[in-house]
Amino acid sequence: MTSQAAPLTTGPVKVVGTGLLGTSIALCLAGQGVPVQLSDASPSALALARDMGAGEPVHDASPEPAVVVVATPPDVAGPVVLDMLRRHPAAVVTDVASVKAVIAAEVAEGADDGARTRYVGSHPMAGRERSGAIAADADLFAGRPWVISAADDASPAAAGAVRALALDVGALPVPLAPQEHDDAVALVSHIPQLAASLVAARLVDAPEAALSLAGQGLRDVTRIAASDPRLWAAILVGNAGPVAAGLRELRADLDALIDSLDRAATAGPLAPGAMGALSAVVSAGNTGVGRVPGKHGGAPRRYATVQVLVPDEPGELGRLFGEVGEIGVNIEDLLLEHSAGARVGIAHLSVVPAAAAELEQELTTRGWRVVAE
Amino acid sequence: MTSQAAPLTTGPVKVVGTGLLGTSIALCLAGQGVPVQLSDASPSALALARDMGAGEPVHDASPEPAVVVVATPPDVAGPVVLDMLRRHPAAVVTDVASVKAVIAAEVAEGADDGARTRYVGSHPMAGRERSGAIAADADLFAGRPWVISAADDASPAAAGAVRALALDVGALPVPLAPQEHDDAVALVSHIPQLAASLVAARLVDAPEAALSLAGQGLRDVTRIAASDPRLWAAILVGNAGPVAAGLRELRADLDALIDSLDRAATAGPLAPGAMGALSAVVSAGNTGVGRVPGKHGGAPRRYATVQVLVPDEPGELGRLFGEVGEIGVNIEDLLLEHSAGARVGIAHLSVVPAAAAELEQELTTRGWRVVAE
Repeated sequence: MTSQAAPLTTGPVKVVGTGLLGTSIALCLAGQGVPVQLSDASPSALALARDMGAGEPVHDASPEPAVVVVATPPDVAGPVVLDMLRRHPAAVVTDVASVKAVIAAEVAEGADDGARTRYVGSHPMAGRERSGAIAADADLFAGRPWVISAADDASPAAAGAVRALALDVGALPVPLAPQEHDDAVALVSHIPQLAASLVAARLVDAPEAALSLAGQGLRDVTRIAASDPRLWAAILVGNAGPVAAGLRELRADLDALIDSLDRAATAGPLAPGAMGALSAVVSAGNTGVGRVPGKHGGAPRRYATVQVLVPDEPGELGRLFGEVGEIGVNIEDLLLEHSAGARVGIAHLSVVPAAAAELEQELTTRGWRVVAE
Repeated sequence: MTSQAAPLTTGPVKVVGTGLLGTSIALCLAGQGVPVQLSDASPSALALARDMGAGEPVHDASPEPAVVVVATPPDVAGPVVLDMLRRHPAAVVTDVASVKAVIAAEVAEGADDGARTRYVGSHPMAGRERSGAIAADADLFAGRPWVISAADDASPAAAGAVRALALDVGALPVPLAPQEHDDAVALVSHIPQLAASLVAARLVDAPEAALSLAGQGLRDVTRIAASDPRLWAAILVGNAGPVAAGLRELRADLDALIDSLDRAATAGPLAPGAMGALSAVVSAGNTGVGRVPGKHGGAPRRYATVQVLVPDEPGELGRLFGEVGEIGVNIEDLLLEHSAGARVGIAHLSVVPAAAAELEQELTTRGWRVVAE
């Protein structure tokens, strides 16, 4: 579990579907003493989740849940949500499916006015390559975004209950209307998934010798191409409009790219406009990836980066971060360029701009070599 | 340095171009006691490489090199190779440009019969999104394929010398004729690069809220989109034919995909053939990524990663790295995933695989929460 404080969620939570997400949520809540009721169509999946300490299977004597979390596959989430709204007339009901507008529409159509106010969809942006309860982890959501997708007629109290659930599992609530959410995940999840699949599909008939040249770049681009086809077909159908729209924009860029390459193939580097068009494509990619928060996308632009040379010896990193801790500046993001065999590595410390000058000066005073970005 | 045994390369090695690849090769060879002569048009780039321990700048009294490695940008590699063949009449000359047929043609046309036998192109399948000597790493080539691309008239001795160089930096030599090489890298490198750029380009105008949902999948797919536009434009122009051919096949799949999504958007999951076509795309991706050497397309990585939850308080990072220092495990690379507003960040510690289990256990014993990768 992530939270040190007492959980915001009190009353019983019913988790429907003990797969990776459902069991991870249940594990984290149960670990904080929240009574969790488990339900799954598969008795063996249910037993596994219980044996992992995720809660108790729901039974006739189970108290009415305060919150119901529907963690079924996305294509059945809508009907299950409607069923739960009917079965538990006092409960707040949410789901964790990766598309939200379709389910919101099913609820708007299938639930009466009173019930509609008790539904608030959500989407935890967390997952793993392995699926099922066996891969569940109470820390799965720690520090991850968790979309709270309230329709216009949802009650503030219901939205608050789902937000509390997200906070209890250590996630970051991100309020987004259902359609905003679907447009967003088309860009940051569904289109990247399809691009990975399309690139990987080119390898089906590739010569062995070509595959033997595979590097980290290909592995990174195609890693998620290993995803479950049935699950993804359901996700894509559920978000077909926004995904198709994004892919049309991508295809327009692709057409221009192929055209430039054709001209370069015949006329070489001096083909008018070819070099310009090709660098423009990669350059636009630079700009786009630069906007991705954290990790490989680099720190968000709002941070300043201080680069420190770190002698290539064990313990030096510990000394650096120990002293950064003493200085009392919080590191927002960091990256180490560790050149094994070189005499130094370079630690890139991202801090709020206001703190950069102090950190730079303090580190220099303590004998560290700070280099320009 | 990578190799434990004495290097196969003995005589002086001249490295022309102290960028990422040139400096990494130089660092690794110098680390094994091979005399390395550095040359670069930019005095500051040259000085940086020397300061990193990559070798000494070439000067009038430098002995004749046994091997010359041309590590300039690909669009000037051909002329520089020809110049080196003339200047060093006894040396074996290779280049590390990522296209081979164009350069082979330039050498065949520009060098006399004797000189031609001393040229053997090569292509180390290694790199990173950051460029320049500052990003150099003596282990950059460890376990990576290194294409040895000998034209028909190259001498076996020259091919052997380039093969020895590849082995000395820990790479795996892969013999491929120039055109075979170019067709292969279109599939495993150039098309993935462009796909990453096209996906990242979609993010240029994305709302902040959408970007805040970015997960590891997007980060992996777009990581290489941070590559240098000028360098890539030159690479792509040099391999325009094979890349355009591969992109046409990709576009055909993309068109079918958009068509299926359009039908699903109007008729829903029951749109005839839509689910089937969408799963087929993802399924073909499964097959393709399954052919990439290494588990689920995941690298035989140089390092294992241990993920540790770090409370978002000043000093906690210092405490973590202090204790990592006490444990005595050297951190090869690290990244901090820090979502603003989260109570925790996630530190990704890269260590040699043999040390991962110990580090994970020691950290857990000390009360840190370690998340499975």
